[in-house]
Amino acid sequence: MKLYFAGSIRGGRSDAALYARLIARLKERHTVLTEHVGAPSAFPTVEEGMTDAEIWAQDMAWLRECDAVIAECSTPSLGVGYELAMAQRLGKPVRIFHDERRGPLSAMLTGDPYYRILPYSDEEDLFRKLDAALEALQAPASA
Amino acid sequence: MKLYFAGSIRGGRSDAALYARLIARLKERHTVLTEHVGAPSAFPTVEEGMTDAEIWAQDMAWLRECDAVIAECSTPSLGVGYELAMAQRLGKPVRIFHDERRGPLSAMLTGDPYYRILPYSDEEDLFRKLDAALEALQAPASA
Repeated sequence: MKLYFAGSIRGGRSDAALYARLIARLKERHTVLTEHVGAPSAFPTVEEGMTDAEIWAQDMAWLRECDAVIAECSTPSLGVGYELAMAQRLGKPVRIFHDERRGPLSAMLTGDPYYRILPYSDEEDLFRKLDAALEALQAPASA
Repeated sequence: MKLYFAGSIRGGRSDAALYARLIARLKERHTVLTEHVGAPSAFPTVEEGMTDAEIWAQDMAWLRECDAVIAECSTPSLGVGYELAMAQRLGKPVRIFHDERRGPLSAMLTGDPYYRILPYSDEEDLFRKLDAALEALQAPASA
């Protein structure tokens, strides 16, 4: 599958290393269009010196291209919230992972029946749930 | 006008007092549908004991009902990002205020030509720009 991985960039980079580990796992069997989200820099972009309009246009093109969206939502982010609403508008399957130790997730996500929310208790639990979610997304019945 | 004021709730309440001052200014001449966003509590809702599905359904009803969305985006928030994308889907005029001292705003907002972004340097500047934005939203030519 072509996956759009969504994680916080300008909202805060405290989970950047976790994003990199998640992207590495996704890449074992899939293509990750937004691999730069896990890069070890403050404001990673796919190419240096892009304007905000270029970043937005690229991300929207990837969102249209992807087969599914995998979001790690433990760090609040305006951009990720926007991307999840846009993914819904485009009819893309969305799986939202959230560290339940970090407090409650936005009611705009948990309350909207479109999304599948996957709270996790620790990183082992996260990767177990991620593997199961990817298998289910690939199964013909839930495609 | 009926205004939908958007500010962070579960993303963090460090700007809650600012939201309350903005809502008070909006209420001088307009109706604010989401007045609870400025309440001095951690997770304010319009009524106590609402489920996340009820909160989401109420917020979406207000978003459909409003004449315009006024967002204060200095605290990153998944819910606000989601609301701004939904406001665009509904064709609502959106004005986004952002304290430029707090670092760069999401490229999903600054890069999307739909939004009018209003960076501000301090609270005096914010209120001056808010008053001008409200007057322009009410003028028949830009309605």
